[in-house]
Amino acid sequence: MHFELLHQDKNSQARAGKLVTDHGEIETPIFMPVGTVGSVKGIHQHEIENEIKAQIILGNTYHLFLRPGTEVLEAAGGLHKFMNYNRPILTDSGGYQVYSMSGSRKITEEGVKFQSHVDGSYHFFTPERAIDIQRSIGADIIMAFDECTPYPCDYQYAKRSMKMTHRWLDRCFTQMNNTEPKYGYEQALFPIVQGSVYTDLRQESAKYIADTDSLGNAIGGLSVGEPAEELYAMTEVVTAILPKEKPRYLMGVGTPINLLECIALGIDMFDCVMPTRNARHGMLFTSEGIINIKNKKWEKDFSPIDPNGTSSVDTFYTKAYLRHLVRTKESLGLQIASIHNLAFYLALMKEARTRIIDGTFTEWKNKMVVKLGQRL
Amino acid sequence: MHFELLHQDKNSQARAGKLVTDHGEIETPIFMPVGTVGSVKGIHQHEIENEIKAQIILGNTYHLFLRPGTEVLEAAGGLHKFMNYNRPILTDSGGYQVYSMSGSRKITEEGVKFQSHVDGSYHFFTPERAIDIQRSIGADIIMAFDECTPYPCDYQYAKRSMKMTHRWLDRCFTQMNNTEPKYGYEQALFPIVQGSVYTDLRQESAKYIADTDSLGNAIGGLSVGEPAEELYAMTEVVTAILPKEKPRYLMGVGTPINLLECIALGIDMFDCVMPTRNARHGMLFTSEGIINIKNKKWEKDFSPIDPNGTSSVDTFYTKAYLRHLVRTKESLGLQIASIHNLAFYLALMKEARTRIIDGTFTEWKNKMVVKLGQRL
Ligand SMILES: [Zn+2]
Ligand SMILES: [Zn+2]
Repeated sequence: MHFELLHQDKNSQARAGKLVTDHGEIETPIFMPVGTVGSVKGIHQHEIENEIKAQIILGNTYHLFLRPGTEVLEAAGGLHKFMNYNRPILTDSGGYQVYSMSGSRKITEEGVKFQSHVDGSYHFFTPERAIDIQRSIGADIIMAFDECTPYPCDYQYAKRSMKMTHRWLDRCFTQMNNTEPKYGYEQALFPIVQGSVYTDLRQESAKYIADTDSLGNAIGGLSVGEPAEELYAMTEVVTAILPKEKPRYLMGVGTPINLLECIALGIDMFDCVMPTRNARHGMLFTSEGIINIKNKKWEKDFSPIDPNGTSSVDTFYTKAYLRHLVRTKESLGLQIASIHNLAFYLALMKEARTRIIDGTFTEWKNKMVVKLGQRL
Repeated sequence: MHFELLHQDKNSQARAGKLVTDHGEIETPIFMPVGTVGSVKGIHQHEIENEIKAQIILGNTYHLFLRPGTEVLEAAGGLHKFMNYNRPILTDSGGYQVYSMSGSRKITEEGVKFQSHVDGSYHFFTPERAIDIQRSIGADIIMAFDECTPYPCDYQYAKRSMKMTHRWLDRCFTQMNNTEPKYGYEQALFPIVQGSVYTDLRQESAKYIADTDSLGNAIGGLSVGEPAEELYAMTEVVTAILPKEKPRYLMGVGTPINLLECIALGIDMFDCVMPTRNARHGMLFTSEGIINIKNKKWEKDFSPIDPNGTSSVDTFYTKAYLRHLVRTKESLGLQIASIHNLAFYLALMKEARTRIIDGTFTEWKNKMVVKLGQRL
């Protein structure tokens, strides 16, 4: 795997690049649709490729470990073959899901004991185990096992947690070096910067992560409830330190506005459940603003869902029809809204990239963040 | 609208025909996927056409009346335009749904008062109203407003109900004659034979319906819990009386075996929620028998879902992957299983038609009913 930094915006930290993996190239900045348990909810594999035009998707180590389990994934020859999806895949380490289970997990220096949300069984994740599982899943990019601190988080806890995350990172690298990919293609480990919303901790963590000289670097522990200003401030602090020649992945972010602002701060990769989760509630992101399709005003609006949209659902179905499907909780409503939102996110990243390359990014971004926030 | 009887099987009552509507031709025997509220659950319109290869789908008057309502449907220019689906559509009259609501409905000679399952509001359906609503929906084939008796049903109730259904039918025809199609294409009214499981009532009703000289005729009140023998016996009694030169629609039937047996008894059209409802529980119909995809035996079976299947999901996805999706309740699992089951139903109808035309139907049917019932 390698990353080529193709263009650096003059008026911001925005960059256009290309990440080359054994499953194909990824043009950055990029958004990664979330396929938690081996499926992007409601979307066929050919739609991921042809409608959403995703270049990389994200799987979840915790969920895939519980079901179908590593034994099935290994028998299949890895997640790509299991899903019949041949483009790049990234897996998060499972840390975030495990920590979200308040009460049913226990963190020690060794690792995290937790209870399955499926059958209540107990499991123990360590940095070594998180690597082993991700070797079995076979993602192209695998994430270090870290502790994702909540917001708010007191300084002393954030500091202790960050230090442990660094020690866990060393163990992740050791385990990577002691093991081989199982399916013949390269897997790259991305370390994760932590440090909550404390500038000095973020700087310390960013330096520690930069020193690992990894193929790519991630920023975790943000988009956990903090104000957008804190998200941007911490991102700026960290991107100032992370190496320019490596891709930077901001985990769990965010709204279309968040994405554009963080691209301006030097981020290359994003993931978020927002486009699919909000689709379920009938919230559509468009280049003109946000549509709540459940609103009465769309009841007899037989215009296309999004005349500027890039997927076929945008012009095939009408607002009135989608409103009806979402109100009656028809599965097709979720499917259409999800394809629309994800295709919009990917198209937004594509245009950002074009703007970075042709030198009009900042001007365009400042105009877009106004439009993107409007309620239609 | 007209029906051409193209071939009559020598060894059974099976027929191959062609029903011509303003939205295109339907080759019979045919199965109609159910799109209750203006969507075949989990399936895009282009998939209905290209994957399932449906020639006609079914909408539900009761559900469409409640949501989106006739005002929206009229503003859209009818259900075809609302859905952006341009092949033939049939709507049932809503009677079945209304009668299924035990306790919250009241039947009188004038019509049926019932309570909406959506918001508890009260509504009153009469034969005239059922026609008016179906005029607004704009289906190519619209069904008479009838009372669908439950099983079991005592003789006196079944007789009184059948007589009322006949009086309601007269009112439906009067209302049809007093109104015009709203969207410029023809709508045909199919009357419905009732009479529960009583031979003399079924005969009386079939004669009454045959005398209306309608463009097509339907058999209702079956597949409501009676044994398969009763279903077949009543179907045989009725098809012996209904005119040969008109299509015969057996409502709410059934399993693949039911379909083949009833084709042999002279039925041309079917609808049933079984292929989609069973898909949700992971039950797949195939030419080799029934697959319960949740079974452990498929856990590491990476063979195609159905190597003999006619839709692209059959060979694109594996049994192990579909099992995983159904177990984790991923929407994609329902989508794949529904496409498979419906495509299988349509392919089965297509092969039945070919067999009727080439004279091998009975032989093939007798072999198939054994295979179709097997558990794989
Ligand atoms: Zn998010
Ligand atoms: Zn049925």
